[in-house]
This record gives sequence, structure tokens and C-alpha cells, in this order.
Amino acid sequence: MKRISISAILLIFIISCNQNKTNSTIETTVNKTDSITIKNIFNTALTQGQSYQWLDYLSNEIGGRLSGSPESLKAISWGEELMKSLAFDKVWLQDVMVPNWKRGEKEIAYFTVNNTKFNVPICALGGSIATPKEGITAEVIEVKSLEEAQQLGEKLRGKIVFFNGPFDDTHIQTFKAYSGCAGQRYSGAKVTGEFGVAGVIVRSLTHNIDDYPHTGAMSYDDLPEDKKVPTAAISTKAANLLSEKLKENPSLKFYFKQSCVTLPDEPSYNVIGEIIGSEFPNKIITVGGHLDSWDLGDGAHDDGAGIVQSIEVLRLFKLNGIKPKHTIRCVLFINEENGLRGGKKYAEEAKAKNENHIAALESDSGGFTPRGFSFDANNTNTNLLLSWKPLLAPYGLHDIEEGHAGSDIGPLKSETISLFGYKPDSQRYFDYHHAATDTFDKINKRELELGAASMASLVYLLDTYLN
Amino acid sequence: MKRISISAILLIFIISCNQNKTNSTIETTVNKTDSITIKNIFNTALTQGQSYQWLDYLSNEIGGRLSGSPESLKAISWGEELMKSLAFDKVWLQDVMVPNWKRGEKEIAYFTVNNTKFNVPICALGGSIATPKEGITAEVIEVKSLEEAQQLGEKLRGKIVFFNGPFDDTHIQTFKAYSGCAGQRYSGAKVTGEFGVAGVIVRSLTHNIDDYPHTGAMSYDDLPEDKKVPTAAISTKAANLLSEKLKENPSLKFYFKQSCVTLPDEPSYNVIGEIIGSEFPNKIITVGGHLDSWDLGDGAHDDGAGIVQSIEVLRLFKLNGIKPKHTIRCVLFINEENGLRGGKKYAEEAKAKNENHIAALESDSGGFTPRGFSFDANNTNTNLLLSWKPLLAPYGLHDIEEGHAGSDIGPLKSETISLFGYKPDSQRYFDYHHAATDTFDKINKRELELGAASMASLVYLLDTYLN
Repeated sequence: MKRISISAILLIFIISCNQNKTNSTIETTVNKTDSITIKNIFNTALTQGQSYQWLDYLSNEIGGRLSGSPESLKAISWGEELMKSLAFDKVWLQDVMVPNWKRGEKEIAYFTVNNTKFNVPICALGGSIATPKEGITAEVIEVKSLEEAQQLGEKLRGKIVFFNGPFDDTHIQTFKAYSGCAGQRYSGAKVTGEFGVAGVIVRSLTHNIDDYPHTGAMSYDDLPEDKKVPTAAISTKAANLLSEKLKENPSLKFYFKQSCVTLPDEPSYNVIGEIIGSEFPNKIITVGGHLDSWDLGDGAHDDGAGIVQSIEVLRLFKLNGIKPKHTIRCVLFINEENGLRGGKKYAEEAKAKNENHIAALESDSGGFTPRGFSFDANNTNTNLLLSWKPLLAPYGLHDIEEGHAGSDIGPLKSETISLFGYKPDSQRYFDYHHAATDTFDKINKRELELGAASMASLVYLLDTYLN
Repeated sequence: MKRISISAILLIFIISCNQNKTNSTIETTVNKTDSITIKNIFNTALTQGQSYQWLDYLSNEIGGRLSGSPESLKAISWGEELMKSLAFDKVWLQDVMVPNWKRGEKEIAYFTVNNTKFNVPICALGGSIATPKEGITAEVIEVKSLEEAQQLGEKLRGKIVFFNGPFDDTHIQTFKAYSGCAGQRYSGAKVTGEFGVAGVIVRSLTHNIDDYPHTGAMSYDDLPEDKKVPTAAISTKAANLLSEKLKENPSLKFYFKQSCVTLPDEPSYNVIGEIIGSEFPNKIITVGGHLDSWDLGDGAHDDGAGIVQSIEVLRLFKLNGIKPKHTIRCVLFINEENGLRGGKKYAEEAKAKNENHIAALESDSGGFTPRGFSFDANNTNTNLLLSWKPLLAPYGLHDIEEGHAGSDIGPLKSETISLFGYKPDSQRYFDYHHAATDTFDKINKRELELGAASMASLVYLLDTYLN
């Protein structure tokens, strides 16, 4: 079904234009068999897809599933049972020790100006320590970046540092706005801790101006215990209000209280299933997402979508009678959000077992309408990938660009492997990312299914043309 | 600001590949000034945009605005005042007589099987007559298409004809699924009326399986009065249930009742505003959407989005100091949904006044993330348009394809005018189209703003390069 026959090559386009990574001539081969197979993959995904129903269960019946939580173990069992029920050739669990951070009681924050109390929607950042039981009260210093905080140095002592760097709305790709200010969330406490600050609060990483705080990982890095301070995200609406009130009342006091705790590491698992390759069983193409999520929402977009799409890729192969030459492996990685232990363990074990991973694809950008793929590959495979553009364009997959492929598959990086990231439309992602609003009702069935079909189509092409 | 200088032409790409309408060589000119201007348009739309706030008002303060309704007149006043407040060079109303169909009381429908009553979510189709006050009860014949109904002929007599042709989910562009079965809604009563049927019910035109009936226009065409029968849409979930129950109980009776009425035509208006061209004031580029909507939702996507984006196009020109060579005219067309009187009147008057319309752009596919433009143009302008692809691609505007441009601008069609339709992503459109679910909360601010910027960028290029 998937052999290249010279006679099947219908059209050869020579496109001489400015492409990423190469200005050289790219031969674009449009193969009729490929075109039909891809159409069949999309047809079955849209008419017989299961990803939406699976995600409904994962989101609504299991819910948020932070590493180390009982829900994360339920999700692991669910993933294992589901892949077994789909009759993949092999399904197993891979042991991973994961961090075990618990949020504790709902956080409280407020500030008072002229006897008016303003309650502030707040959530502890993942990895933060608790405040004392009675909470923390201190004056606030607002900064817009890590650099600005560092320059203030000793002036920060005793204060709550308020990182208020907003998203740059002019980026078309919202991930660029995110990466432009994610540092203040991840390293705000590390950078200011040595100046003896009282605590750190961070503007939520979203375009939206609303009442939802967005959590996410933070790190104290190598700070000594006595320099670690409680760190929390506050909603963008509260951040704007606080910033405004600080202008009039620079000495206003901010109060917050959180009771989060880091317990000893817990045993957990990557869930792995595979279809064994008919010609090259020892050459592996991995497709995956991460099974853990933050605890505030139900993790439908981050990354329940990637999980159900990855499982659906293998199901779509079976449904369409595609017998892959290479082994196609689906991995539900654990602990992407606060440790990446699953991704690291998977790569370590692959290395220890001398496994030959030729390609990996990750879906961890939400379940939105397809836009393309990012890639990190050598020149030969880059040219091959770009030659598939005419096959992918009818499905809205135009953005085929070099870039970050995925956190979980990152540790697999080598000279020979090609890494890919599924790129759905990014406009709505940070409306929900790491917040209580990341819930199943934000999923559009067709968009999710089109994503699964896009991923299956890429895996099909990789299996057909890679060696 | 917008003159072409030879020295400003930085890159010339010769793309020899399969393009719509031509296999010939297309010269793709990427002009640095154009690139900067388009970036500025997007930046201002995303950071200083007003379209979202306007749409909030139109949707939530005025709401559904069917032609002839008090709400439609409020929307007309709002549009006129808004354009005046933005200091466009000229703002005026154009008289249009519009149909005046009223839904009346909320419709009722049900069927009973084995003493169990199943209530059916239903809505009259626009233009339908009422049932008798006591409603209609009759047996049901299910068909999947107009052709199947015609073949049944006399067997339909006395029955309620149930058009149950579903969306074909395998179309990637959802408008294709819509056009594949819209005929049963528009012409179901016309085609079956001559066989003496009791009434017509039509499966809602959506992919979603839910409880919301989707209304829309229907026509009796030239049927005599005594052959006209009440016609309604039923929800997809009810359609599936009815179909299932009919298999077991082919003689089950269906009841429905509606009290809609067509009153005499009412005076109404297109709302028009323009910036007068600095070099060619008598050459006009029109951009618009339709101000009327159906009555069930608040018409946020259909077509409030197109309205606020069209006004924003002119505002973005002013905000960026772009002084157009041609006259740029914004038209808020009335009565697209059930008559197209606004579009027809605008074209008639343009012809009567011998106006020279060189291009027109319509936004009437929802306020979703940008995908491209459809066009209907002569070969010269087609090549020109395709040469702009590299300028538009960074904003997700890849789908530049020949096709239907827009209903309201359709009557302007001539040998010389180029017609364009803004194409946002289509996946979610028919979730809401013509239903109670088409409400402002389904609008994403960035997606709406990106659409306005996409349209302004195309109008900028048309103004710069068309003669």
C-alpha cells in the first residue's frame, strides 16, 4: 500500500523559492497513493474518530492529573487499558519517579487601599513553598522583567516582587508572546531570592484580561533553603488593578497565603503502546503527548488533546489497514509540567537499550485547528519534509518550519533522529493554558480530529519515506 | 507612503508551480514598504483594536436584528453614529425596502411512540407560513435529498416531509458540507409543495449533534398560495432520534405548531461610510458585511464580525496614516439573510450613478482565525493577487483561491471589478450558524482582530496596486 512506484509519481514540481533552511532546489514529489491514503486517514478521523470521546472521559471523569496525584495514576491505568483494548501489538508501563508537589488549600490574596479591600485571584506556582500559616504581608515593588529586578538588587529586600511583564500582543504566534515573559514565572524567585525578598507574585501568562490565575512551573534552582520565598501567579485583571493602585499608593501592603508542599518523589509511569514494524521492527517512530496536567482545570487542551490524538494515530493506521514498515510507538509521557522526568526516562532507557529512534512527533500545543508542523531535522530529512508540502496543504498544514518540536521528545535528540511538533492554531491556547478554564468544553470535535489526522498523515509519510 | 519605488523591491521570486487558474510563471514581488505597512496594520489591530468592543455592544446591547425588526433599525443608527464618530469623510444611509417576516411565538413540536412523548427542538424557517393555530399532525416520510423527495412524488401527499440529509463530515472546508445540503432547507417546501404535503421539517444544517435548531431562509418560489406549507428546522439530535423511531414505527405522528407571519415590506437602510481617495476619488474599493442577522442568537459571528471588521478596516487606515489613492467605502448591507435587498440596491444605485467600483471585499464567514481570501477576478488581477502571497503568508493567509466572494457584493459583479471574500477558519462556523448559540461569547478577541487586519492589508494592497 505504501511502496513508492515510479509509475505512481504523477507530478513533479520544481519549486525554486525561498524556503526555510535551504535556498536550493527542492524536488516536490506528489504521489497519488500518498494523496489517497492521507485523504482516507482524514475521512476516517472525521467520521469514525474516537479522540473526542476519549478526551471527554479523560477530562470529565478523571480530570486534572498533576504528577504524583491519585488522578495521574487513574489516567495511567486508563491509557494502558485503552491501548490494550485497541489491540496494539504491545502495551506496557515504564517506571518513572516523579516530583510530588501539592497545592493544598485554596490560596488567598488581597490588598487594601483607603479602607477598600481588593481581593486578588491567585494560585501558587508549581514547586513553590508555602507562606507561613498566617500568610505574608509586605509592600510591593513592580517590575516588568528579570533584568529590571536584578538591577533593583538590594532595593527589593523585604518586599513582595511583582513581576508584571505583559504578553506582547503583536506576535502572530502566541507562543512567542509566552516565551517572551515565561522567564519571570520560572526564574522570578531564583533571581530575586538572594536579595532577601518576602515573596514573589507574577502576572498570569495570557493575553486575556480576566480573573483566572494561570499556574505553571517555577524553580529555585540552586538557591539555599533560607532564600526560597513563596511564589504565586495573579490574574491579569488583578495585575492591572494592582499596578494602577501602586501608582497612587506605592506603599500599599499586599497579603497572600498559600499552603503548598513538596512531598517525597512518587512512583509513576510512562504509558507505551506500539505497532511493530513489518520491515524494520527495530527502527522506531514515536508519537506522543503528556498525560500529566496542572490541577486547576481538567487539562483538556494541555495536554489531553495530545494524548488522545497520539493514541488515535495508531488506531487510524489500523482502521485504514496501513501496516507500517517501522515500529510506530505511542508514548503517554508523565511529568512534562513540573520535571520532564517521563521524557528523560524514556530517552535514557532508549539509549540504554540501544533503540534506534528515527523520528518522533509530539502534540503539546492544544487541540485546535491544524496549521502545520515544526521540525528539527538534518538537511536530507528537511528537504524530504518540505517536499511533502503539497500533500499537506489541502488540510490547512502550511506552516512547516524549523523550530522547537516538543519538550518530552527533546531528550531523544541525536544526530540521526528527526523531531517534529504538531502545530495547531495558537490564538486561543493561552486563554486556557494552566488555568481553571482549560476544560473539555473548550474542545471543538472537528478541530481535535483534524489534528489527529494531521499527525497520522505525517507519521504515515515518515514511515513511507524515512530509512 | 505607498508608492512603488523600484529600489524598494527587495526580492523577486519566480515561482513556477501549480497555482489556481494559471500554470504560467507568476512574478512575486515582495516590497519592503508593503511588508512594513502590513506589519503596522496588524500591530495596531492587535494593540489598539476596537472591533471586539464594538461587537460586544452590537451583540449584547442590540442583539439579534432581523430585517424589519426594531433591533435592525437600532443597529443601523449605531452603525451610522459609529462611523460618524470615527470621522470618516462621508457617512450616509441608503434607502432599502426589506421583507418583514416575524417568527411569532416560540414553536412547539413533538411526536409520541408507545405513549412516550418526545419533545422536538424546532424553529420556523425564515419566510415560512404559520401552521393553523392548533398546529399540524401528520405521518412523516423521511428523505435525504430534494431528488429523493421528487421521486416519491404522490406518495408524499398528506405527509410531513422530513428532509434528513446530514452534513458530509469529510469535507475539510465546512462550507462545502453546508452547500451540499442547504438546498433541502431553501427549496424543500417548493419541491414537495405541489404534491399536497402537510408540512416540511428539515434537519439543522450543522456538524454538531445537539439540541439547537438552526434557522435560515426558505423559498416557496412560484408555488401558488394553496400549495405553501409550514416549514421548520429541527435539531440534529431530534432528527437522529426521529429517524431511529421511524424505522420501528413508520406510521408515528409528528406534531408542530408555529405562528410566523410575513408583513408588508418595511423601509430600511444600508449604512455607508467612506474615506475619499486622494488620487482617484471616483474609483471605489468597497469593504463590507451584513448588518442584519437571524433572530435566535445575537448574530455575533453571522455577521456582526464582518460588520465591525469592515468598519475597523477604515479606522486602521486612519490610525496608520494611510491615505488611500482610491475611495475606500465601508458598507453595512441590510437584509443579506432573507432577501439580499441591501446588496441588490447598492449595486443598482452604483450602476445608476455610473460609479466605478474596482474591487469589493466581503467578510461573512465568521470572526475566526485567518486562513486566506477567495476571489473572483480577471487574469491580470488574479496574477497580481497571487503575487502577494509572500506578504500575506506570515499572517496565516495561505488559502488564496478562486471562489465565491460574498452574497452582498455579488450583484456588483462585472467584467472589470475584482471580488474578494475573507476566509477565516471554517471549523466552528456551523456550530453556531443561524442558531441561538451564535452569541458574543463565541468570539475570540485576537481572532476577530487578526481578521480585521487581514482585510485592511488586502484593501491596502488593492489600493496600492490596482488601477
